[in-house]
Amino acid sequence: MRKLFSTCAALSLAAMPVIGIAQSGSTQISITPTSSQKVIAGAPDRFTGTVRVQSLFDAKEPARSSGGQVTFQPGARSAWHTHPLGQILIVTDGVGWVQQWGGPVQVIRKGDVVWIPSGVKHWHGATPSTTMTHIAFQELLEGTAVNWLEKVTGEQYRLMK
Amino acid sequence: MRKLFSTCAALSLAAMPVIGIAQSGSTQISITPTSSQKVIAGAPDRFTGTVRVQSLFDAKEPARSSGGQVTFQPGARSAWHTHPLGQILIVTDGVGWVQQWGGPVQVIRKGDVVWIPSGVKHWHGATPSTTMTHIAFQELLEGTAVNWLEKVTGEQYRLMK
Repeated sequence: MRKLFSTCAALSLAAMPVIGIAQSGSTQISITPTSSQKVIAGAPDRFTGTVRVQSLFDAKEPARSSGGQVTFQPGARSAWHTHPLGQILIVTDGVGWVQQWGGPVQVIRKGDVVWIPSGVKHWHGATPSTTMTHIAFQELLEGTAVNWLEKVTGEQYRLMK
Repeated sequence: MRKLFSTCAALSLAAMPVIGIAQSGSTQISITPTSSQKVIAGAPDRFTGTVRVQSLFDAKEPARSSGGQVTFQPGARSAWHTHPLGQILIVTDGVGWVQQWGGPVQVIRKGDVVWIPSGVKHWHGATPSTTMTHIAFQELLEGTAVNWLEKVTGEQYRLMK
C-alpha cells in the first residue's frame, strides 16, 4: 500500500511558524513516493532568491519530528531563524554556507551533517556561485519547530565572501 | 569550525537497544563531514547478510531524534523489530523491501519516504537481486529507539519473491 502523507509540517520552513501535527493513529506502514511529496517555493518573507522546499514527512504524534528537502540556487538563503529543539541538516548535493549570529560563515558540502543547537540564531543557503541541497529535520516544542526572524541582507551576505 | 559528533545513537540499529543521549550543551553549530561519520557492519544478531551502518547524528537533549544511513547488499535485511515512537526511512538509492508482521511485502525505491508507526513489528532490507540504501530516523522514548526481535528467516524472506 502506498499512501500519501498529509504534508504540511516540513513546509513550515517556508510557510508557517507553527507546525501542524498529523494524527496518524494508523498501524499500517505507509510509503510516499517522490511524485507525491509536496513541493513549494520558499516564501519571499522567509527566503531570498530561488528556493525549492519539498516536504518529506510530518510529525506524527506521539513522534514530533518533521523533515523536508530544500534546494537553494546560487545566492539564495534562508532568513535568520531559530529552532526551539535545534535542527539537523544533511547536505545531499552541492556547496553552501551556514552562519550563526556573530560567528564566521562556514562552508558545508555534500555528505556533511550539520547540528544547529536549540535557540541559536542562524541562516543557511547557497554560496553566490553554487547550488546547495539539504535534508532538514527538526522537532516540535509546544507545536513550534522554527521561529523566523529578519532576512539576511545583501550586505550581510556579501560580507561573507 | 568542523566538530565531530560523538556518534553512538544511530548505530543502535546495529549495536544496542538503548541509545545514549549526547549531552551537547553547546551553543555552537557543528559540522561533521562524511569522513568523520562512524561506520560499522550490521551486527549478525540483528541483521542478515552484508549491511553497512553509518551514523549521522545522535539525539542531543532536549532533542531526542537520531539518524543513520544504512546500505543493504542483495539478500541482506534487518531482523524483525519495533520502534516505540515509529521510524522514518528515506530511500536514497536502489530498490528494497519492507514488511510488517502479517502484511504483504512492499517495494521501496529511491526517493520513497516510509513511515513505520510506533510498535509495528517489521523488517526492511534489500531484495535478493538489488542493493538498497536508506536514511533512518527514530525518536527516543525513555532512552529506547528500537526493540529487536527475532531474525527474518531464509524461508520468510524467500516467500516474498
